[in-house]
Amino acid sequence: MPENSSCFFSMTEDNQKSDVVIIGGVACGPKTAATLARRNGDLKITLFQKEKDISYGSCGFPYLASGDIESFDQLTETSYGVVRDVDFFKKSKGFNVIPEAEVVEINRTSKKIRIKFISDGSEIEHGYDKLVIATGANPVPPPFPVAQSDRIKPFTRPGDVRNFKRLASAGQIGKALIVGGGFIGCELAEATGVLWGIETVLVEKENQLLPYVLDSEMAVKAERELKRQNVEVLTGETVTEIKLDDDGNPVVVLKKHDPITVDYVFLCLGVRPEVTLAQKAGLKIGPTGAIEVNNQMQTSDENIYAGGDCAETTSRINGQKIFIPMGSLANRHGRVIAENIIGNKTAFPGVTGAFLVKIYDLNVGSVGLTEAVARKAGLNAEFVWGSFPDKPDYYPESKSFSLKLVYEKDSHRLLGLQAAGHGDICRRIDVVSALIGKNSTIADLFDFEHGYAPPYSEALDPLHHLAGVVLAREKGFEFISPATVSEDYENAQWLDVREPDEIKIQTWPKGENADFHTIPLNDLRERLGELDKSRLVVIVCKRGPRSYQSAVILRQAGFKKVKIQSGGYQAACV
Amino acid sequence: MPENSSCFFSMTEDNQKSDVVIIGGVACGPKTAATLARRNGDLKITLFQKEKDISYGSCGFPYLASGDIESFDQLTETSYGVVRDVDFFKKSKGFNVIPEAEVVEINRTSKKIRIKFISDGSEIEHGYDKLVIATGANPVPPPFPVAQSDRIKPFTRPGDVRNFKRLASAGQIGKALIVGGGFIGCELAEATGVLWGIETVLVEKENQLLPYVLDSEMAVKAERELKRQNVEVLTGETVTEIKLDDDGNPVVVLKKHDPITVDYVFLCLGVRPEVTLAQKAGLKIGPTGAIEVNNQMQTSDENIYAGGDCAETTSRINGQKIFIPMGSLANRHGRVIAENIIGNKTAFPGVTGAFLVKIYDLNVGSVGLTEAVARKAGLNAEFVWGSFPDKPDYYPESKSFSLKLVYEKDSHRLLGLQAAGHGDICRRIDVVSALIGKNSTIADLFDFEHGYAPPYSEALDPLHHLAGVVLAREKGFEFISPATVSEDYENAQWLDVREPDEIKIQTWPKGENADFHTIPLNDLRERLGELDKSRLVVIVCKRGPRSYQSAVILRQAGFKKVKIQSGGYQAACV
Repeated sequence: MPENSSCFFSMTEDNQKSDVVIIGGVACGPKTAATLARRNGDLKITLFQKEKDISYGSCGFPYLASGDIESFDQLTETSYGVVRDVDFFKKSKGFNVIPEAEVVEINRTSKKIRIKFISDGSEIEHGYDKLVIATGANPVPPPFPVAQSDRIKPFTRPGDVRNFKRLASAGQIGKALIVGGGFIGCELAEATGVLWGIETVLVEKENQLLPYVLDSEMAVKAERELKRQNVEVLTGETVTEIKLDDDGNPVVVLKKHDPITVDYVFLCLGVRPEVTLAQKAGLKIGPTGAIEVNNQMQTSDENIYAGGDCAETTSRINGQKIFIPMGSLANRHGRVIAENIIGNKTAFPGVTGAFLVKIYDLNVGSVGLTEAVARKAGLNAEFVWGSFPDKPDYYPESKSFSLKLVYEKDSHRLLGLQAAGHGDICRRIDVVSALIGKNSTIADLFDFEHGYAPPYSEALDPLHHLAGVVLAREKGFEFISPATVSEDYENAQWLDVREPDEIKIQTWPKGENADFHTIPLNDLRERLGELDKSRLVVIVCKRGPRSYQSAVILRQAGFKKVKIQSGGYQAACV
Repeated sequence: MPENSSCFFSMTEDNQKSDVVIIGGVACGPKTAATLARRNGDLKITLFQKEKDISYGSCGFPYLASGDIESFDQLTETSYGVVRDVDFFKKSKGFNVIPEAEVVEINRTSKKIRIKFISDGSEIEHGYDKLVIATGANPVPPPFPVAQSDRIKPFTRPGDVRNFKRLASAGQIGKALIVGGGFIGCELAEATGVLWGIETVLVEKENQLLPYVLDSEMAVKAERELKRQNVEVLTGETVTEIKLDDDGNPVVVLKKHDPITVDYVFLCLGVRPEVTLAQKAGLKIGPTGAIEVNNQMQTSDENIYAGGDCAETTSRINGQKIFIPMGSLANRHGRVIAENIIGNKTAFPGVTGAFLVKIYDLNVGSVGLTEAVARKAGLNAEFVWGSFPDKPDYYPESKSFSLKLVYEKDSHRLLGLQAAGHGDICRRIDVVSALIGKNSTIADLFDFEHGYAPPYSEALDPLHHLAGVVLAREKGFEFISPATVSEDYENAQWLDVREPDEIKIQTWPKGENADFHTIPLNDLRERLGELDKSRLVVIVCKRGPRSYQSAVILRQAGFKKVKIQSGGYQAACV
């Protein structure tokens, strides 16, 4: 063992074993260790970390790339400016950290791990009573050939961020391409554009951005925002190879488009759990490819726990095993593991799957199951849409957003909520997450009491309105998805019930031969004669409520074929 | 009946009765009528409104006063610029509105009401099958003599707002005094200062602002913010008389201070339910002074419903009858009443009591019971405090706030949350409101999954941390309230574990003879010798976590008398 590894870790006999050994120094690992050390000061706790950096906030990487965060140190510092290093963990938190020490083997019979020191390749063994595996996740390797270059990199490790910033600061990146339109890809698209003014292309193989967390008609709002910010977005496009041209610049070869030559490529194809060690040790791996754990985060070996991105989790909605790599969950795993090691039986409840992502000025969020995922899981999923201001329209700085609520048709059980817009969506994601966690239904949305004051909210919460749309739907009102544009109903009469001033600013996209009528809601009763009762009427407005009210008027006047466009112009076109 | 009252309401025989008659044209009334009209187009629905103005957003009055909202019309307009007048309600919503028509009597035997037209004093009778009373609330009359003047007014009706704006616009108000430090009083203090640059004094008879919704040590944060904004705040002060000086300026006579001469006085002593009509008709009035209703919002007469500010409601926490005048609740009452009239049995669940108020840059919120209210109600209430950034400290524009969580000691049932700070508190108020509505406990806070991304939140939600403090408390760690300053522990050793740079900026207020030690957390283990083990140590830091960690270190080193100051400097001093 090299001398400089740690002053707290010399090879005395006393140091050949710890009560608790933790593998992994980001999120779950340090959280477990700190909680344990607080609960029981007599425990000897040792954490091994492969990398030099410890306990960095990797979720901040895109903002480090963008310059919102100035230096890497900020991600490893406490809020009061003390660096979370070996010394800090020993002195402030009470446990040992050995960085640049890769655990290469777990021997479950002898209850020992073998550690290889990065600096000189030397190896030692160290015993444990309880072991915690928090090895995190690694980038999914590209399923296409990729040339070796410091201009083609993933974006998951500190080195990746430093590499990009070095080249960008040197003015060497004029154009970048991001492979993968998930969270990191979308966040990076903002980072490259905003700070660096880099011309950016985003390629996603699915037909939409943020697949699995958003349904396609919600994801399109993220795509529109990126396009508004001059990011070129290619969805449904597959990269077949990334090679280098004669100058060493990456050339991205695509299935449908011509090859694109850029100065930098980010490989953001997602991550997969790092389970090599666990697998070699014969621990059970779950169907998701992550380490199988029970609700106490215990693996198939009762002395070994796993948490964070390397461990699987369970959906609170349908009990399915899922893999969700999230720093927030990793921290919560850490607490649960520590409590169980101490002997306080504590269950991790599973996940609702709550996400937020900022894409330029657009706030995007999701919790629970999307309609697509729910249907695939065999649930009888139904949905409603709505668009809302985040505070009363009369209040300054009121901003809009759209919501899609997914629920189970017969039981009315809440399954999920998706949100996108420039207004405050966080409250709604959080509330629906809390309600899903308590196994709630549409009735609970009506019963939810939101904090109300004009600077923050409207008198009725969007969740109340969405619950109202569910009832309307069940009373026979038909709502169509915002994705449905006028061409889809060739023989329909389209009815725009907005005021002329509004229509001038936000013109509804009409099909070429569309039969389009504009009658403001207030005039509708008097001008019903302009519409043909025997034909389908599709009603549109700004956010939805006027269309609904218009449908009421048409139905009461004997119209039988009426459809309401959900969420209005705000949902379909912004 | 005067001709101009309404083109939809002539005295034909057909018009001497409606299926549903609604008394009151703001919030609950129009909401009930609109829902009914949507559900059943055949119903004849008539709404009588005493005032000329209908369906105005009275919660916006302070922002109208401040100029955030430019004109009164904005409060009566739809989001698309159409005024909500008689014509609008008839044509868009499908029901009749008769403004300037005061209902003066309800005859429950003949099922008729008597209406007096404001314009000419004429009266008519009108029958009903179902009646809805939504008469709102009126200002509490001052319990002291008040001179008649257009410079001494409440702030609850459109006329009050117009009156103030007229004088303020004419430059006639240099100094104003607000009697009452509730929501409206606090909002007004901002309005007068921000837009009009009016020198403002706020007088509250209780020893704190926002009594009943905040505990005193949280309310003091609102007081500090007002003082930072140069509002003079006099709590624990009683007005004994408001007279006029020779120039007609109001003179406010106080119990403890010299009389204050100002140009305008706002009487914001709260509101009380307007129940005159109901009382005269022999309907039961509840213990709160509001109309008694069952959970279907039905009064003691099965054909009469009441909702909005004139009706009492039930606490979802302890089942007590309470009076909470809120536009948001009034709207929700409206829906419940309409559904029940239609025959869809629908229960109003009671209230959790969620509030938000913006006081200059300070966001203040509360849900459920305060510690004081809970104890008064006989609950075994316990509490924890915490201070938090609303997003990671490394992220730009991260802002702080403090939370006080109140829970039942043995059952761990959530009783309430209070919040104040410059950061985003709304999510937390909403989530705890949702959880209280589902009868949740501290364990549910641990299990709550918040939406996480650095632009919006930290990896662990403040609610997770608060739950952690509850556990720490039960493991024997002692926390003291932020209200407790150094003088309260004369013989204690005070230990500030912040970094020297932090202490320089935010100096902890020390008692004159305080035994004060500054040892940064990271040095504490090595410098334990500086503290006397036999004496009490009170630990302070910026937000709380370092004090807790320090207490762990002291306890593990054998210190027996250790107290942690809750929520740190942020809670106690900002």
